[in-house]
Amino acid sequence: MKTCLLHATTFARIRERLKGLEHEIEFIVMDEDGLFSHAGDGTVVHDIRPDIVFGNTDVWFGDHARDFMVAVLKTGGIDWFQSSAAGLDNPALISVGKISRTFCTNHTQSEAMAEWALWQSFDFFKKGPEHRAQQAEADWNRLEMREMMGSRWLIVGFGSIGSAVGKRVQLLGGHVTGARRSPGPAEGADHIVPMALVKSELEQADVVLLSVPLTDETAGMVDAEFLAAMRPDALLMNLGRGQLVDEAALVAALDAGRPAFASVDVTAEEPLPSDSPLWRHPKVAITPHNSAMTQATYIRADETFLDNLKSYLANEPLKHVVPRETFAD
Amino acid sequence: MKTCLLHATTFARIRERLKGLEHEIEFIVMDEDGLFSHAGDGTVVHDIRPDIVFGNTDVWFGDHARDFMVAVLKTGGIDWFQSSAAGLDNPALISVGKISRTFCTNHTQSEAMAEWALWQSFDFFKKGPEHRAQQAEADWNRLEMREMMGSRWLIVGFGSIGSAVGKRVQLLGGHVTGARRSPGPAEGADHIVPMALVKSELEQADVVLLSVPLTDETAGMVDAEFLAAMRPDALLMNLGRGQLVDEAALVAALDAGRPAFASVDVTAEEPLPSDSPLWRHPKVAITPHNSAMTQATYIRADETFLDNLKSYLANEPLKHVVPRETFAD
Repeated sequence: MKTCLLHATTFARIRERLKGLEHEIEFIVMDEDGLFSHAGDGTVVHDIRPDIVFGNTDVWFGDHARDFMVAVLKTGGIDWFQSSAAGLDNPALISVGKISRTFCTNHTQSEAMAEWALWQSFDFFKKGPEHRAQQAEADWNRLEMREMMGSRWLIVGFGSIGSAVGKRVQLLGGHVTGARRSPGPAEGADHIVPMALVKSELEQADVVLLSVPLTDETAGMVDAEFLAAMRPDALLMNLGRGQLVDEAALVAALDAGRPAFASVDVTAEEPLPSDSPLWRHPKVAITPHNSAMTQATYIRADETFLDNLKSYLANEPLKHVVPRETFAD
Repeated sequence: MKTCLLHATTFARIRERLKGLEHEIEFIVMDEDGLFSHAGDGTVVHDIRPDIVFGNTDVWFGDHARDFMVAVLKTGGIDWFQSSAAGLDNPALISVGKISRTFCTNHTQSEAMAEWALWQSFDFFKKGPEHRAQQAEADWNRLEMREMMGSRWLIVGFGSIGSAVGKRVQLLGGHVTGARRSPGPAEGADHIVPMALVKSELEQADVVLLSVPLTDETAGMVDAEFLAAMRPDALLMNLGRGQLVDEAALVAALDAGRPAFASVDVTAEEPLPSDSPLWRHPKVAITPHNSAMTQATYIRADETFLDNLKSYLANEPLKHVVPRETFAD
């Protein structure tokens, strides 16, 4: 008998599809109040020793993410952790990776994140802020707009998110250059360039999207020099991590007129402090690190878990396994 | 020798591509001040008798659209009028159609208009108004968003605009039902239903887009009953004509909570009077009938004209010719 820990909201969504597994797995759920109980009879559980943990987004966006992770880490060791995230830069995920025999990531957030990129770029091309300011003044003034069709994108970091964005941009008639470490073609990109050539590509780009992991090499890569190489009519978007961008340099660059606008789902400090000049800057759109937060993202992550659970119970290889050495000290 | 009238801005954009035609066509341009002159030597022209007229969007969005059309109508008869619009509901176009041996429409505005529909629907699905209100308050609150992927669209009027929207929605993973008079499949639609079934389809639709021509049958079709049949979480968009919608009923319906939001590029009276309640309604987004207004739209219309001009000079059939009986009294 295996034990599996997951969030009560996740369990409620997939319980019908777990029918038939009652004799193989005991399910423990953490509810919205942070209480742990047997999913079967609702009795409270004090000592949690799961073999399997599914950390879907319900955990991260709930009020008791910390309690959940503390309970997992207290076990000292689990068999398999299924994450709902593609990345590993959250320290809690690194800690749990160290105590997991198998740690799996998940790349289904990229669909919603790609839609966020389309949303923000359309609002930029179609002059959303200018149109809304006019509407507030009852001003019927026909602004000329730009088109996605024919627009030139530079996507910095061409993993699952970059590719999901690039595919959509291509379908809508845009041109996509992707920058990443490994050479060779990639779905969703017309061209792939090495990271070293990013700066020389900036002057061609109507849109520059950051979707690169945060590493020692990428931290602060968007500095004053990077921004000064962008076009005055370009949009900068950040779907990666806030620390990729020198935020003081960004504010100065926007004030100097290059780039034209910045849309960020991530900031160097989160939540963004209320005194940050980004909040009320007229050339900045901020979303609170929720670009992946859709019901469909939760459901796609459930699918990944259910697929992997089937493989796990059949002793077959799981998908999206992170190499053990990634978590070595 | 033929004479061709067009806007000076249009001529400047395509003059290089008209080289070699000087011995076949004399070009007369109307400039931004409404003055008519020979494109060749700049001398003013008082009596204009063009064989060919290209009424690109530069005319309609300039200050002297009326002078241009009056000059055309004063001739009493022209050989060929190339319009930049798909529709014929502008009375000036009907008048010029009556005196034109050949009248051609143009369907290249639909690309930009389709992008407008994506813009407005993404801003709705991604909670643009709510996110902007939060940003103004420096409030880091993770809103859950909806996805284009899997969304259900009802496109009322499935001509060039409806199809251009439908194709994009399908590429992004949405489901499209198109309503039009003629049965049979259409590119960009998963299903086509007759206009009589529109109301029964409303309860399925996350997005209802109006892209139907204004006729006696369609005028006022979006009334209180239509709106009450929509979902409370649905978006209504209007890319057709303002008179399709009973605007008082729309305001009442939005206030009653069904549909959730309305995005309109057209209003019953244009410019929209400053005392219209639509201007400052929190559930309404207005653009000033400029959804097609992009540089690329102008350039695509130029292409239509240049293609047809080649055919005209070779005595070959033109594209997008409106049947003569359309203009019969």
